[in-house]
Amino acid sequence: MPKKRSQPANEDSLIQLLKYRYPSKSPQLKKGIGDDAAVVRPTGADEFWLITSDMLVESIDFRREWTTPRQLGRKSISVNLSDLAAMGARPRFFTVSLAISPDIPERWILDFHDGLAEKGNALGAHLIGGDLSRAERHIVVSITAFGESLNGKVLYRSGGKAGDLLYVTGSLGRSAAGLKLLQDPGIKSRVRLRKEALKAHLDPEPRCAAGLWLAQSGLVSCMMDLSDGLSMDLPRLCAASGVGAEIRAQSLPIFQPCALWNCDPVDLALHGGEDHELLFAVPRSRNRQLEDKYPARFPRITRIGELIPGKGKVWLAGQRPEERHWLLPQLGWDHFKSVP
Amino acid sequence: MPKKRSQPANEDSLIQLLKYRYPSKSPQLKKGIGDDAAVVRPTGADEFWLITSDMLVESIDFRREWTTPRQLGRKSISVNLSDLAAMGARPRFFTVSLAISPDIPERWILDFHDGLAEKGNALGAHLIGGDLSRAERHIVVSITAFGESLNGKVLYRSGGKAGDLLYVTGSLGRSAAGLKLLQDPGIKSRVRLRKEALKAHLDPEPRCAAGLWLAQSGLVSCMMDLSDGLSMDLPRLCAASGVGAEIRAQSLPIFQPCALWNCDPVDLALHGGEDHELLFAVPRSRNRQLEDKYPARFPRITRIGELIPGKGKVWLAGQRPEERHWLLPQLGWDHFKSVP
Repeated sequence: MPKKRSQPANEDSLIQLLKYRYPSKSPQLKKGIGDDAAVVRPTGADEFWLITSDMLVESIDFRREWTTPRQLGRKSISVNLSDLAAMGARPRFFTVSLAISPDIPERWILDFHDGLAEKGNALGAHLIGGDLSRAERHIVVSITAFGESLNGKVLYRSGGKAGDLLYVTGSLGRSAAGLKLLQDPGIKSRVRLRKEALKAHLDPEPRCAAGLWLAQSGLVSCMMDLSDGLSMDLPRLCAASGVGAEIRAQSLPIFQPCALWNCDPVDLALHGGEDHELLFAVPRSRNRQLEDKYPARFPRITRIGELIPGKGKVWLAGQRPEERHWLLPQLGWDHFKSVP
Repeated sequence: MPKKRSQPANEDSLIQLLKYRYPSKSPQLKKGIGDDAAVVRPTGADEFWLITSDMLVESIDFRREWTTPRQLGRKSISVNLSDLAAMGARPRFFTVSLAISPDIPERWILDFHDGLAEKGNALGAHLIGGDLSRAERHIVVSITAFGESLNGKVLYRSGGKAGDLLYVTGSLGRSAAGLKLLQDPGIKSRVRLRKEALKAHLDPEPRCAAGLWLAQSGLVSCMMDLSDGLSMDLPRLCAASGVGAEIRAQSLPIFQPCALWNCDPVDLALHGGEDHELLFAVPRSRNRQLEDKYPARFPRITRIGELIPGKGKVWLAGQRPEERHWLLPQLGWDHFKSVP
């Protein structure tokens, strides 16, 4: 611990530090700092309550000129509900604190809240309060969302075992491809693909129904949401579970069309952030059952690799079986170090 | 409502708008937008859970050069716990989202969290999660705090009746006097008074124990905390209760020493923000009982006036009985319009 203090700040090491410095001993607290959400059981309550907070900062997490206020509202609540989805919770309530610069008109504020309320309500989360504040220059959105477990079932990052098979929902790299389109307006692409990538980036869909189903299935050992890129988030899942992982490049559900946009689809799938898909592990004895039962109406799931012994080490298997394995570099999104 | 949209934004009108636009119908929600905290009852839970969010923005709500990170941490959680105190809740948990500029060292972040955890723990609230983010320039602190009722008793802003007597805890204007000292370093004053005013501003004490006692007493009809100044907050209490109020200037528990610091103590008591004292009303038939029973170990309470018919109108009685009453102007702190 004293050693860490002299190192430059990064998000993970700071969160580790905070977790050890401020252990909480409340009997109502099941899980504090360090997962997608905190888990509490109010005395007498039938279910666990899950609490997660996420902040979006203008010019770091979004640019005003790239998003409508309604889209920003929708995305702000979605990224929080994705954290609840990752633990299998049902969205219930949320608060929003909003700091806005003087040039923002009231219309903008209302449209932002419309987006928040519309997306939140659609997924079962109701706006119950918050704070409005001035800022000198940049908009800051800070949301805290509350979810409720079903049948007391909550999935953590920490339940994985070596040998479990790794899956993701949906496809990876679409949001980063959408960001690329925004950054480089000269890129030509088919309207449908452009729309798909922009939607993934500006108005992502949290996997609430899939997350709830996976938690209820009893077939999943650990789960988290992919917000900072697979190469950042998978090591976190591994560290929490005390295992390593090996993933196969050719198994990743990449967003292939971005190859025409000067992007490497595998790179974006590994290191692009904000996919808000679910990453989860399934014991090898249960994977057939899971694949058979998983409802077709949910975003498809793809097996991308497996958990292996060796805490926190993540290996990437190459295209050809004879290729050596590489330690996957953590090139994803560190909220603390990067600027887009 | 459409009329309001064309008006310039101010915090109260926006909150009213949001309250009507986003009514929440969840059976688990007892009170949504519009009080010091939202009130929910998780299914099966023995008690209500209260949720409040408050944001502090650098250069709007604080200046880095005036506060240590530890003080800022302590104040950040205190202002949130004051909202819980105002409804009679016991602090339980909190999350913090923190956006920091690149020049902030890790030591600052840890000291800030130490302040948060130290003050939170002392009052029963444990840090259970949050978010760390980059900001380009200004620090933003966003906290959501959770409290639990005792014996199901919660006080709202809305229970006041004409004829009820108005009280405040502690003294008013001390925090504003402390701010004055920071703004004008040339002011000379006795060390003890300087310390007292600076502490009120930089490290205020939320009235958790008094708030809990008042809610449990069954003698109080409505309550809120004074965060934006009596002249801003009392009309809010009145509007929620559907009454007016008359307060007497000579009854206010002013911070007299600031008269030597080029301040009018009555002005600061009326319009200075961030006192974080409790404002509450007591039916006339109960006030003797309340004054007799109120524990001496808590901050003193002072009767400052009474609730009267006439929704939302607040009158100030002058020094002499023959003086006319004045409609108290709302000169307190509007987070939305003012810059310190």
